[in-house]
Amino acid sequence: MSILVVGSIALDSVETSFGKVDDSPGGSALYFSAAASFYCPVNVVGVVGSDFDATHLSFLKKRAVNFDGLYVDSGETFRWGGRYHVDLNKRDTLFTFLNVFENFQPVIPRQYQDLEYVFLANIDPDLQLKVLDQIRKPGLVVLDTMNFWISGKLARLKEVIRRTNILILNDEETMELSGIPNLILAIKEIASWGPQALVVKKGQHGALLYHNDRFFFAPAYPLAKVVDPTGAGDSFAGGFLGYIAREGNLEDSTLRKAIIAGSTIASFTVEDFSFKKLIQLTPERLEERYAMFKDLTSF
Amino acid sequence: MSILVVGSIALDSVETSFGKVDDSPGGSALYFSAAASFYCPVNVVGVVGSDFDATHLSFLKKRAVNFDGLYVDSGETFRWGGRYHVDLNKRDTLFTFLNVFENFQPVIPRQYQDLEYVFLANIDPDLQLKVLDQIRKPGLVVLDTMNFWISGKLARLKEVIRRTNILILNDEETMELSGIPNLILAIKEIASWGPQALVVKKGQHGALLYHNDRFFFAPAYPLAKVVDPTGAGDSFAGGFLGYIAREGNLEDSTLRKAIIAGSTIASFTVEDFSFKKLIQLTPERLEERYAMFKDLTSF
Repeated sequence: MSILVVGSIALDSVETSFGKVDDSPGGSALYFSAAASFYCPVNVVGVVGSDFDATHLSFLKKRAVNFDGLYVDSGETFRWGGRYHVDLNKRDTLFTFLNVFENFQPVIPRQYQDLEYVFLANIDPDLQLKVLDQIRKPGLVVLDTMNFWISGKLARLKEVIRRTNILILNDEETMELSGIPNLILAIKEIASWGPQALVVKKGQHGALLYHNDRFFFAPAYPLAKVVDPTGAGDSFAGGFLGYIAREGNLEDSTLRKAIIAGSTIASFTVEDFSFKKLIQLTPERLEERYAMFKDLTSF
Repeated sequence: MSILVVGSIALDSVETSFGKVDDSPGGSALYFSAAASFYCPVNVVGVVGSDFDATHLSFLKKRAVNFDGLYVDSGETFRWGGRYHVDLNKRDTLFTFLNVFENFQPVIPRQYQDLEYVFLANIDPDLQLKVLDQIRKPGLVVLDTMNFWISGKLARLKEVIRRTNILILNDEETMELSGIPNLILAIKEIASWGPQALVVKKGQHGALLYHNDRFFFAPAYPLAKVVDPTGAGDSFAGGFLGYIAREGNLEDSTLRKAIIAGSTIASFTVEDFSFKKLIQLTPERLEERYAMFKDLTSF
């Protein structure tokens, strides 16, 4: 099974206590694809400017990531700049230039309109709805969003959620979206709006799955060195949905393993800047770390 | 096997969004004992003032908690007052009156001096050293401390740590004590000072065990209602060491199950004020929730 992902493609300038990079490839659609492509083919819909160096995508093309839905507009590529604190949970955004992304209207190529697995990365809910309207028979819709849309476009976001099978949020967003300060109650409330499952990302504290009225908890992999957290969430989502698409079912045990797959990939992403680690990563190394989660949690 | 615990006995006044209590029994020695006594006999060394109502201890006495080491001084009992925010991870201390605790000098009754399992609750490292000097052949010393002693009495605290088998800290304290901002490296650094194992409490995010160069991660039980977090850490420690003392060995699988035992008890503690929930708790209910941790983490 292959996946459709609609999201951002960016050039990121990132500074952490381990160094800095300028205009490095990034964005939700690329981080998602880099992760998901370990499990199944991925089809990207997004936009870049005429300044975007196509060789940034070479490693993804080799891994069955298809870019027929990549539009090149005149103008500059979306750029984001951020500086992380020594406490990597905190960061300052230095700049956000939407550039060609500002007027992005996702057009799903005909050959993608029959795809069943859809990942709506964190973009404007209006655009997310437009994507869904172009899919003939969405089988599994996975949605990511952020506090910006929760506070700014709540009604439209709720429309997307009603058409979503699995919603991915972080813990703060979950409580903000539901208006409930207890995470567990907040999750149950949002699940009552329609999604079959919720995944709550807690960064260094792991991830929580709610499905079939059961909770599953996965820790983050214990890393002695986190170089750059950028892309952790999107590569988590990529490993998660990639695993599900490969297995082709929504059984609880599949979703649980998919959470571990996502956690595993994300643990590699943050070990270096941009895609440096994911470019080197092999399926064998991925499998090896996946297996270590058993040791990390069994008692 | 029975345990010796030396720590505070307090009257707490606590306010949370669910209500408030005044002068309710609390303190590290009592929370620890209430938890550990589900697994083995506990012997308390501590001090109260002449105002302390001995009936507060009745439920503990019924559970084989021995108070031969409880000293009653003229003066008032240690009092603490705090108010938790809606985000229960944040609290303001309203007052701390040490009262009789200010001049507490722990004297270990002769019949306790041969105990092998020792829990040094969070008190002045000078007092913790005095306790250790009175134990003939400590078999397993478990130590709790806090940032106040890390910043104020580091040299003495390190002396205690060198004589400690298992050190319990929270994540911030671990990084502060080691001076290393990465939790995993911080844990390994402190382990190199002597302790065989470290337990890092992460509150609502669970707990991490480091032992024999392996990590084990336990989530916090997903609670829809947390009424009062006071005592969570000490009852966690009580469940943890109680379980170990009952099993009588330090195998990795014992420590892992002990972490789950501690997490289970702590999840009950926070469901009501003071000891309300732990007083009602039965071994059957405890066992039932312990078992649910399997479902929460298996994949």
